[in-house]
Amino acid sequence: MTDLNEWLNTSMPNTVKKLEDSIATKYHAETGDYFGLSCCNEVIEVLDDLLAVIFPGCFGREKIPPAEITFYLHDLLRHICRRLLKHLNSVLEYQNHHENREPQDSTERAGQTLIHFIESLPEIRGMLLEDIQTALGGDPAAYSIDEIVMSYPFVDAVATHRLAHNLYSQNVPIIPRIMSERAHSRTGIDIHPGARIQPGFFIDHGTGVVIGETCTIGRNVKIYQGVTLGARSPFDTSGAPRTGQKRHPDIEDDVIIYANSTILGGKTVIGKGAIIGGNCFITESIPPGSIVRRDETG
Amino acid sequence: MTDLNEWLNTSMPNTVKKLEDSIATKYHAETGDYFGLSCCNEVIEVLDDLLAVIFPGCFGREKIPPAEITFYLHDLLRHICRRLLKHLNSVLEYQNHHENREPQDSTERAGQTLIHFIESLPEIRGMLLEDIQTALGGDPAAYSIDEIVMSYPFVDAVATHRLAHNLYSQNVPIIPRIMSERAHSRTGIDIHPGARIQPGFFIDHGTGVVIGETCTIGRNVKIYQGVTLGARSPFDTSGAPRTGQKRHPDIEDDVIIYANSTILGGKTVIGKGAIIGGNCFITESIPPGSIVRRDETG
Amino acid sequence: MTDLNEWLNTSMPNTVKKLEDSIATKYHAETGDYFGLSCCNEVIEVLDDLLAVIFPGCFGREKIPPAEITFYLHDLLRHICRRLLKHLNSVLEYQNHHENREPQDSTERAGQTLIHFIESLPEIRGMLLEDIQTALGGDPAAYSIDEIVMSYPFVDAVATHRLAHNLYSQNVPIIPRIMSERAHSRTGIDIHPGARIQPGFFIDHGTGVVIGETCTIGRNVKIYQGVTLGARSPFDTSGAPRTGQKRHPDIEDDVIIYANSTILGGKTVIGKGAIIGGNCFITESIPPGSIVRRDETG
Amino acid sequence: MTDLNEWLNTSMPNTVKKLEDSIATKYHAETGDYFGLSCCNEVIEVLDDLLAVIFPGCFGREKIPPAEITFYLHDLLRHICRRLLKHLNSVLEYQNHHENREPQDSTERAGQTLIHFIESLPEIRGMLLEDIQTALGGDPAAYSIDEIVMSYPFVDAVATHRLAHNLYSQNVPIIPRIMSERAHSRTGIDIHPGARIQPGFFIDHGTGVVIGETCTIGRNVKIYQGVTLGARSPFDTSGAPRTGQKRHPDIEDDVIIYANSTILGGKTVIGKGAIIGGNCFITESIPPGSIVRRDETG
Amino acid sequence: MTDLNEWLNTSMPNTVKKLEDSIATKYHAETGDYFGLSCCNEVIEVLDDLLAVIFPGCFGREKIPPAEITFYLHDLLRHICRRLLKHLNSVLEYQNHHENREPQDSTERAGQTLIHFIESLPEIRGMLLEDIQTALGGDPAAYSIDEIVMSYPFVDAVATHRLAHNLYSQNVPIIPRIMSERAHSRTGIDIHPGARIQPGFFIDHGTGVVIGETCTIGRNVKIYQGVTLGARSPFDTSGAPRTGQKRHPDIEDDVIIYANSTILGGKTVIGKGAIIGGNCFITESIPPGSIVRRDETG
Amino acid sequence: MTDLNEWLNTSMPNTVKKLEDSIATKYHAETGDYFGLSCCNEVIEVLDDLLAVIFPGCFGREKIPPAEITFYLHDLLRHICRRLLKHLNSVLEYQNHHENREPQDSTERAGQTLIHFIESLPEIRGMLLEDIQTALGGDPAAYSIDEIVMSYPFVDAVATHRLAHNLYSQNVPIIPRIMSERAHSRTGIDIHPGARIQPGFFIDHGTGVVIGETCTIGRNVKIYQGVTLGARSPFDTSGAPRTGQKRHPDIEDDVIIYANSTILGGKTVIGKGAIIGGNCFITESIPPGSIVRRDETG
Repeated sequence: MTDLNEWLNTSMPNTVKKLEDSIATKYHAETGDYFGLSCCNEVIEVLDDLLAVIFPGCFGREKIPPAEITFYLHDLLRHICRRLLKHLNSVLEYQNHHENREPQDSTERAGQTLIHFIESLPEIRGMLLEDIQTALGGDPAAYSIDEIVMSYPFVDAVATHRLAHNLYSQNVPIIPRIMSERAHSRTGIDIHPGARIQPGFFIDHGTGVVIGETCTIGRNVKIYQGVTLGARSPFDTSGAPRTGQKRHPDIEDDVIIYANSTILGGKTVIGKGAIIGGNCFITESIPPGSIVRRDETG
Repeated sequence: MTDLNEWLNTSMPNTVKKLEDSIATKYHAETGDYFGLSCCNEVIEVLDDLLAVIFPGCFGREKIPPAEITFYLHDLLRHICRRLLKHLNSVLEYQNHHENREPQDSTERAGQTLIHFIESLPEIRGMLLEDIQTALGGDPAAYSIDEIVMSYPFVDAVATHRLAHNLYSQNVPIIPRIMSERAHSRTGIDIHPGARIQPGFFIDHGTGVVIGETCTIGRNVKIYQGVTLGARSPFDTSGAPRTGQKRHPDIEDDVIIYANSTILGGKTVIGKGAIIGGNCFITESIPPGSIVRRDETG
Repeated sequence: MTDLNEWLNTSMPNTVKKLEDSIATKYHAETGDYFGLSCCNEVIEVLDDLLAVIFPGCFGREKIPPAEITFYLHDLLRHICRRLLKHLNSVLEYQNHHENREPQDSTERAGQTLIHFIESLPEIRGMLLEDIQTALGGDPAAYSIDEIVMSYPFVDAVATHRLAHNLYSQNVPIIPRIMSERAHSRTGIDIHPGARIQPGFFIDHGTGVVIGETCTIGRNVKIYQGVTLGARSPFDTSGAPRTGQKRHPDIEDDVIIYANSTILGGKTVIGKGAIIGGNCFITESIPPGSIVRRDETG
Repeated sequence: MTDLNEWLNTSMPNTVKKLEDSIATKYHAETGDYFGLSCCNEVIEVLDDLLAVIFPGCFGREKIPPAEITFYLHDLLRHICRRLLKHLNSVLEYQNHHENREPQDSTERAGQTLIHFIESLPEIRGMLLEDIQTALGGDPAAYSIDEIVMSYPFVDAVATHRLAHNLYSQNVPIIPRIMSERAHSRTGIDIHPGARIQPGFFIDHGTGVVIGETCTIGRNVKIYQGVTLGARSPFDTSGAPRTGQKRHPDIEDDVIIYANSTILGGKTVIGKGAIIGGNCFITESIPPGSIVRRDETG
Repeated sequence: MTDLNEWLNTSMPNTVKKLEDSIATKYHAETGDYFGLSCCNEVIEVLDDLLAVIFPGCFGREKIPPAEITFYLHDLLRHICRRLLKHLNSVLEYQNHHENREPQDSTERAGQTLIHFIESLPEIRGMLLEDIQTALGGDPAAYSIDEIVMSYPFVDAVATHRLAHNLYSQNVPIIPRIMSERAHSRTGIDIHPGARIQPGFFIDHGTGVVIGETCTIGRNVKIYQGVTLGARSPFDTSGAPRTGQKRHPDIEDDVIIYANSTILGGKTVIGKGAIIGGNCFITESIPPGSIVRRDETG
Repeated sequence: MTDLNEWLNTSMPNTVKKLEDSIATKYHAETGDYFGLSCCNEVIEVLDDLLAVIFPGCFGREKIPPAEITFYLHDLLRHICRRLLKHLNSVLEYQNHHENREPQDSTERAGQTLIHFIESLPEIRGMLLEDIQTALGGDPAAYSIDEIVMSYPFVDAVATHRLAHNLYSQNVPIIPRIMSERAHSRTGIDIHPGARIQPGFFIDHGTGVVIGETCTIGRNVKIYQGVTLGARSPFDTSGAPRTGQKRHPDIEDDVIIYANSTILGGKTVIGKGAIIGGNCFITESIPPGSIVRRDETG
């Protein structure tokens, strides 16, 4: 092992130097303030605590006796506020820098964003209870609300989405995406924080579901694993990305979309009450009440 | 930050109050005993220890010297028994409450369930060795049994399923679903604990696989990523969920189902030795020995 | 609980004995050196530290002040070297045993493998910067390089692949597969360490992507969720696995493959600049510059 | 190891049974509610957080940027309140039971105790600043207030005492003693929570210092390692413990007591400004302004 | 910082080399098997678990509901056995090597030692209950047995001693000393594992107490802080250590020794019921029933 | 609990405000840079790692196989350097501020201090081996060098002192005191980092030992528990602390000082080979070769 030790002392410093140059010069130069950004893990810890506020005892790290619930919520919310404010400050400063905005103090905006976010939590919880109610009515294998909260992955994914969407709507960069990606990693369900989703939304199984940034989804919609609500092409005819345009479909109330179907395009509307069978590939609007099936020959 | 501090002290308590009311009144009232239920994380820790009993050194947190294996197994099983019994008691009490059963002491039933479960572990391990053997024979990229145990996600998913299915068969609620959802989160493979699966079962890659509650799968079956063994529709013609019915297909011995194919329906049987090509969509039975391919024009 | 306690003391030892026999005799006998192998968790810790070397502050556990970056990299690389060398020794010894190679000291080879691996890190980082640049240009929803590093799952998957592929190319068994499976679990993207992938590679969303062992992928290729680059059949006409053959397709420069498309076969070539629409199923070569779409009737 | 395994399965259960009987019958019977009592470790965690409130950044687990101090204090105090209230409830119920008090709800008393305790924290902090000032003026080796807070054991011991004494004064059982014993373990300084100590108190080195329950100590007193302020005999002439009596000395303002001296008795008063040399043994009052020395022949 | 980095890469390896040589050559050569010995931290974890077996809920990491106590004890004892056996094997092999004993398998002896140790636990617990009873009767400040278990340092020290003494009596090297040193560090009470101490033993405050290897202590003895029961001189007239001789005093039943007194010599006997006042220095035997006081002039 | 909740929301903020004012105004104003100082816990972690470098496998968290010792030392030293440099920078900046030195960059000095410190480690280890050798020769109860390293508290105390003294000698503030206080807390042995101690130093038992800042101790000195090597009075005749003066005794080679003896004064010299019996109180020099005993009447 003599050679290895020698290499560690004499040659490895060169490798370190190259990595360091790459980080300090190449990457850093392009992006400005990379090192000052929030640490992903810390944002994820805040997310986990938020889920524990919404469903205490299930998502949290401890069982909460009913008598302690007031204390618990207040304690945990305080703790969330302290850390989330720090991360909000950090990304809002980054945003000012990245978008070449006029220099301004982001502290005030971070505080207002936090207040609005926390005040929305009861409403977000209300929507989630409707989501769970849809699941209970829509899955023959569902046993009880408790079982759904504790073992259905869409609860994690949709709860995280509703939290992230609130921040997205307040024009907070990066943090909503870290949050939604966390749920994606845990559940295989990838919902962009920009999607607008009404209450009563249920995703069964969920792996492979993708819901794009400019999607809208009505009340009491059910979708299954592998469903993509995507863009026809992310590029316009000149090959440039279609940033900022409506690129993803609208799903109206009471629609059901079965497994592995794909619905594409910003002008595509799936009308109220329509049922889309499994493995369909749809790029045009579907009238309300329609039933669409693929040929079942395999 | 004065305003924020003021808000924290004067307005946030209202938000806490609303959340508390939502938890205490709305949710709790509907479901009875939510706070008394087992904590998900603790069930998952028991599952992880069970996997470590079955493949010590690989799934566990430590390498086990051969000379210590007896001690290790006994020690870990004791520890599993203590915690699993507590969780069994908790969910069986919940079941009595939720199903309005006549009050009875669930302690006796929890004990018998635990005994039967632990005594099944050697048999479960035997089935898993057959599963792994199928993988070794069926994947050209497989190097050795060790590699399979340590790096193939289906080992986690199928081992967890065989454990969860034992509890499901003993009519234990919720715990089996928490277990199978854990494997789903880690592997993208979603097997309902109700599915009955013979030994020699291999899933390659696995992301997006869904296997429904009333599926049966014969010996030496191989399936690939994205395969759904699902229900035609979870609702009967009146729109009510088809709870308790046979809703998912039967897969006989020696069948191969390639990637992203979908097989639906409780009367659909894939006959012994049939091969289903990739991306097929099947809602009718397939005779034994058949080969089914989709049109390959894209 | 008397019966349960009695069972624990009198009958459970039999169950332990059966498990122990199964581990010691059946499994162990077939595979030789199982217990001596590296622990999966420890390999995964090394992987996480490697990702933290490449994107410090994002994948790591702590924010790194710019002034400490040199120290941090050197410190962490030292720590990686110490542990990775141990695991390399372990799997190379296993390889000698498993392949019935002539006994030889694997220490020298482990050292050389480690040196080559560490010296490749700056080059691997360079390729990842090109991958990220492709993402920035190709996703209308992308905000900045920082956002991509912190919230796009393909960064984890492709970075892990480039690390694992280096070890695979040096004929290291098992460790590369544990690494790629870790990324698969976190992202739903399953890239075999054997695949050869040029820089500028972007996977959007990613869940369900499978890229086979003998794939080659050119520069600036973009693929979407659910894309399979697979084998036509893993078995030859005699039913034996086609180990060691070219089984997976070649994707040339500048190709785009949209969501849920499947491309199979070792002789299948997707020509330079071709665009494959969503949900296509392709088993023949596609000429350069072609556009392939599936029928859009659903 | 056959014999050992056999013993574990056949004989060890008897040992467990004996331990269990001992715990359930003998000990438990005498003491009532042992298992329901607060866990020591949890009380100690609360203590550590209280010290972090008083000297943030030094005793706590993290450095606190000045801009976050308000948030930090509020967050941590909330967290302390939640847990301390639980422990107060537990020991006050124990007290009702142990003292055969009439049954009453201890919740109200726990809440009032908590409020009074928290409201005293600023005053306690003020006294500690005076203690530190005395140290700075009295130890030639002291460098700065910061150094004293971070490295003088008496800060831990006296801060803990002032917290524990507040609870003792509110007639809270057990918790104050767990707290003071924690400081004793860390510093070797054993101050009974009953002792009444004015501000400006400094203990140098401290190991072996014992200060009894009914001691009073005036302002600006300095003592050194090994000093005992104890009782002449804990028993009266009939051999019964002198519970509830004044058993320990009074130390007036500005006294200095050098190392390893012993002062005993409830009627012993060390007068204002007296200096007691090292290794003295005193059981009678000493007039103000006196200097007492032992013979220095060894 | 250029110079520092250069030094790290070029000169620090020399320092490492020197340390390595020192460890490998100098120290190692003298002592044989240093690296193979048990890790101190692991022995201390076993000790902590043993204390939790004896006083569950107090010394352990969790509160134990009465209904789970049987399970808890059995589970924890199993876990203790597994780890303690490993450490026993390790130190017994070391002993064979260090004492140049004839080579023999230490496994059998380790197993028998373990069995005897575990079977003694109920008896040890019984003695500790007597110790606590003495404290309750002897300290006017004591409130209840529960308070004593949870906050009197002598409980930790004497419980650890009784455990360590069992192993010492079975001629186990090193482990008993690691255990007693752990208690010494936490309590300031230093009892050599060789001391033979009858039940009903109480140490108040305790800091600075030293009890030597060949001490014997009768029933219902009480001692206070700073008491030394030591050797007159550890060297014989030739200057060699008096290894293996009786070097420390005998304390008969019902003796009380007040704070900071010193009693030296292997032939010194403190007779039944004697009372030794504070700060005495005794090197001759004291008749039963005597009262010894130092001059109280200071 | 209504009142408590109301108090938490309305009155507790006032308490927080008072604490905040106390921290920000009163304390902070006097001391300047308190919040920017090193965190105690982090310094202690560095100390623990240094002890693990000196006695790997004993003080560290893991057993080190001999083959990995080079790697281990290098890895750990790198990690120590990174963190210690940061703390050195922090306290040197503090020193500039506190001593009103002319502003200067402390980086250079921190780097040089670190280099000198690390290069001294082999020499420090050499001195510790001599210390241990003295213990082995001087304690009849000592079994082997291994036992001494693993269970004698003076090893921790003296090793920590030799490390802290190196930094003290380089005029580093605060960090040496945090280190020595850590050893004090664990062992009851309080050695000021300023004391100059030759090799071959042994402290038996150790609780209560105090060694002052300006002490010097020769080769092969042995002392016992409770020995104070202190100052006559820390104040001069005007009452001001005698900062910077020689205040503590000199102990020449081969001296033995038995338990609980006190030696005071900066001009007091205990001559070569002298023996000081237990419980002596000495304020004058003792000639070489003398034996001093206290009257043994108690």
